[in-house]
Amino acid sequence: MASIDKKSQSNLTQPGFEAALFALTLDRSQPAPLHQQLCDGLRALLLRGGDLAGLPLPPSRSLAAELSVSRMTVTTAYDQLMAEGYLTARRGSGTFVAADLPHLAPAPQNAPPPAPPPAAWQIFQTGLPDQSLFPHRDWARQMDRAWRAPDPALLGRPDPFGWMPLRRAIAAHLGAWRGLDCQGEQVVITGGAWDGVDILARALLPPPAQTGPAQTGPAQIALEDPGWASLHHAVRDTGHIPLPLRIDAEGFDPARIPDRTAAATAAAIVTPSRHYPTGRPMPLARRLALLDWAAAQGTLIVEDDYDSEFRYQGQPLPALAGLDQQGRTIYMGSFSKLLSSALRLGYLVLPEPAIAPVHAYLAQRGARASLAPQPALAGFMDSGEFATHLRRMRRSYARRQVVLLDALAPLARWLDLAPDPSGMHLCVPLRPCLRAHTCDRAIAEAGRAMGLRIGALSAHAVLPDAPEALLLGYSGFDEAELRDGAARLCRLITGLT
Amino acid sequence: MASIDKKSQSNLTQPGFEAALFALTLDRSQPAPLHQQLCDGLRALLLRGGDLAGLPLPPSRSLAAELSVSRMTVTTAYDQLMAEGYLTARRGSGTFVAADLPHLAPAPQNAPPPAPPPAAWQIFQTGLPDQSLFPHRDWARQMDRAWRAPDPALLGRPDPFGWMPLRRAIAAHLGAWRGLDCQGEQVVITGGAWDGVDILARALLPPPAQTGPAQTGPAQIALEDPGWASLHHAVRDTGHIPLPLRIDAEGFDPARIPDRTAAATAAAIVTPSRHYPTGRPMPLARRLALLDWAAAQGTLIVEDDYDSEFRYQGQPLPALAGLDQQGRTIYMGSFSKLLSSALRLGYLVLPEPAIAPVHAYLAQRGARASLAPQPALAGFMDSGEFATHLRRMRRSYARRQVVLLDALAPLARWLDLAPDPSGMHLCVPLRPCLRAHTCDRAIAEAGRAMGLRIGALSAHAVLPDAPEALLLGYSGFDEAELRDGAARLCRLITGLT
Repeated sequence: MASIDKKSQSNLTQPGFEAALFALTLDRSQPAPLHQQLCDGLRALLLRGGDLAGLPLPPSRSLAAELSVSRMTVTTAYDQLMAEGYLTARRGSGTFVAADLPHLAPAPQNAPPPAPPPAAWQIFQTGLPDQSLFPHRDWARQMDRAWRAPDPALLGRPDPFGWMPLRRAIAAHLGAWRGLDCQGEQVVITGGAWDGVDILARALLPPPAQTGPAQTGPAQIALEDPGWASLHHAVRDTGHIPLPLRIDAEGFDPARIPDRTAAATAAAIVTPSRHYPTGRPMPLARRLALLDWAAAQGTLIVEDDYDSEFRYQGQPLPALAGLDQQGRTIYMGSFSKLLSSALRLGYLVLPEPAIAPVHAYLAQRGARASLAPQPALAGFMDSGEFATHLRRMRRSYARRQVVLLDALAPLARWLDLAPDPSGMHLCVPLRPCLRAHTCDRAIAEAGRAMGLRIGALSAHAVLPDAPEALLLGYSGFDEAELRDGAARLCRLITGLT
Repeated sequence: MASIDKKSQSNLTQPGFEAALFALTLDRSQPAPLHQQLCDGLRALLLRGGDLAGLPLPPSRSLAAELSVSRMTVTTAYDQLMAEGYLTARRGSGTFVAADLPHLAPAPQNAPPPAPPPAAWQIFQTGLPDQSLFPHRDWARQMDRAWRAPDPALLGRPDPFGWMPLRRAIAAHLGAWRGLDCQGEQVVITGGAWDGVDILARALLPPPAQTGPAQTGPAQIALEDPGWASLHHAVRDTGHIPLPLRIDAEGFDPARIPDRTAAATAAAIVTPSRHYPTGRPMPLARRLALLDWAAAQGTLIVEDDYDSEFRYQGQPLPALAGLDQQGRTIYMGSFSKLLSSALRLGYLVLPEPAIAPVHAYLAQRGARASLAPQPALAGFMDSGEFATHLRRMRRSYARRQVVLLDALAPLARWLDLAPDPSGMHLCVPLRPCLRAHTCDRAIAEAGRAMGLRIGALSAHAVLPDAPEALLLGYSGFDEAELRDGAARLCRLITGLT
């Protein structure tokens, strides 16, 4: 590439322009042909120089002599820039910089400010897998095996539902771990829970009026409150309206939906296995009431089963999707909590009536999930390495929870500490004596200044008078980190009281 | 796991229920503890049996004796099912199947119908990379290297803009191949063009009224007509309104936007390097007019540069984003055409003013692009294998275009055949003598029955009186396939005339 003398970059006049042209450096050791280097250098000069409109260019013969290149090199570069509109030829009088190209004004050469760098994980961050356990060698071997001599189907027309061997492996996993009887044909690989909600709303709900042909109007999608805050955004992105409902001790209660809006409630997104973020399971009677309500109203239920593999005591209740006889429940799972959130892989299990509409939608939109990790993950699951990894994580998390509870024991006077039979974080209510001094958000805020990433339950709610508790993720931190974090939390809380 | 006699699965009465219980098989060679096997078997029986509500269960002592297990095994299983709500205990009179659990009715065990299997690629499909050239071994090696002992940052808090080494590699690639001077900090890794449009609309345009707090109303996003049909859907998904504008010989012309809607036009999505699907480049003067219009109106320009790496003659015009001094142009690229559409990887290059709002949006929403292929792709680009692969593809596509044109020569009377200096497909207008007999859609339709995937230009338009042409993808097919496809197309067209 031609390089330009630094001083020649701004506000050139005719003599300066000619000098800058003659100062262009062409490098014969570069792979780019000389005429291309010249063309690039000239173009850069025109774009960065001052008001050059109408200035004459040196005759090709002179420029060629100055640059020690053939005349053909120069005429080729001039021709290309004429084709691009930077230069014009006037018959008999030579080549000129084109007029009325206002964008040839000097450009500020500001580099953009750097984006904020990604931060390290801070203690008590929720939902983080134990990354020290991840079997990177096995995973890399599966990646290599999947792509070294890829199955021809991997290169064919992609199935909008994802890679079938992975879908079958997921169905087998759900049968073994969740007692959910389903087929690979029902499984859709997604780019995560947000993508899953997006697909379901667009494929299965009537379009909001503004974007659809009919005057249907947006629907309401009922959400648990407190709940996963991103769902509000995911629902709004679909053009529908999030309807937060305060949960009770048994979780989401469809009876709380106001009568006047019941008809407009097209779907509900719930976490029956383990309410997020309180961790409470929904009892069977409430599950059945929810299914009855959905059947009566024609409502869609999305069962977000985000971390139910991590159960340390007792058996999980059967999945809602397995109880549903009416085909109104979609099971939604994720690999974010199992491998890494950066994989961006989740899945839906569709009841039979939803398969055709979701297929029609995705055939047009295309899948959002990358195929790159899918065959490797299928191999990882089929080989049993995945189940081994899950069991290893489960043992690790159980130990970590015990360590955290033990290290928090000095706070038992202020916090309602109790073991949780499942999950990756503790939801710890504030005792009244602590609430007299402070609130969960204030503790979270104060913790941030001390490098603690404590969650506040009330920050997961949008309705007023939200319950208060601290959310303390333990799954992603080793025992020393947990003890250190707990010690800092002890100092923080004793300082507040 | 306990297995259930087939005959015992339907419509059990009390004696049948007891018999089925006693027939449960527990397997001591299984890793699951006996109480868990019993619990699972009992639950399955309750879920699949007939109307069992209120039936008594055998005393724990009898069932333990029948099954040759300890009494503790039975009481543990009963307790678990009581906790789950399947069983109830009445003081002094034993254990019963819970009443009012209507979902314990027999379930039809229908398997869902299989989804349609993914089809193979058909000749003339556009936008398909030459997969025989893909360096699978190199790619697999990069995948393995990236994940065998992963950079700790790969496991840390993900950067919502994607993996920085890949972003830097893309910036270097754009500098070398497109003359676009940008930094890795400006690059956002996306899940493809649809995701890119989605991010830009949500991060940079005012929210449509229905979903936002303010009464802003949806904006118009101008699109080329003909153009990429999916953009209509991608725009509608954001809640904004697609505004198709008929292109002229120079491409998209902002002067065609009706005055009354000009103010509502918040963005335009254009393909200046190579209009999709006609293949025409936008001349410099029109590019500058477009930038002037955008600056005057405060409009956002999205430059979709989907396949400009495949240029066989001459130099590409500089990217619009490189000409823009006002920071209103976002450059959008994709790896779909370079490696595989199934990678689901694309990118945006943001002008400086767009960085902060896009970062704010993505920090909340999270990235959609999987991290799994990103370090491998960065290594592939940094090692030079990617550029080698691009050059190899470019040579292959140039040859394939020549072969296709040669094989189509017998149709020169009917079709306006001409070489295209770039791209992956030919856009071949119908001559008037052919249009007297038929139209592009009819040819595409008739071709489908013959296994030809011919595109119709007019099918890429939504406005009336669309131009007509056949779109013939050649990049993804070898020379024999192209000759065979061309021979079939010759038969098809001579049969229509």
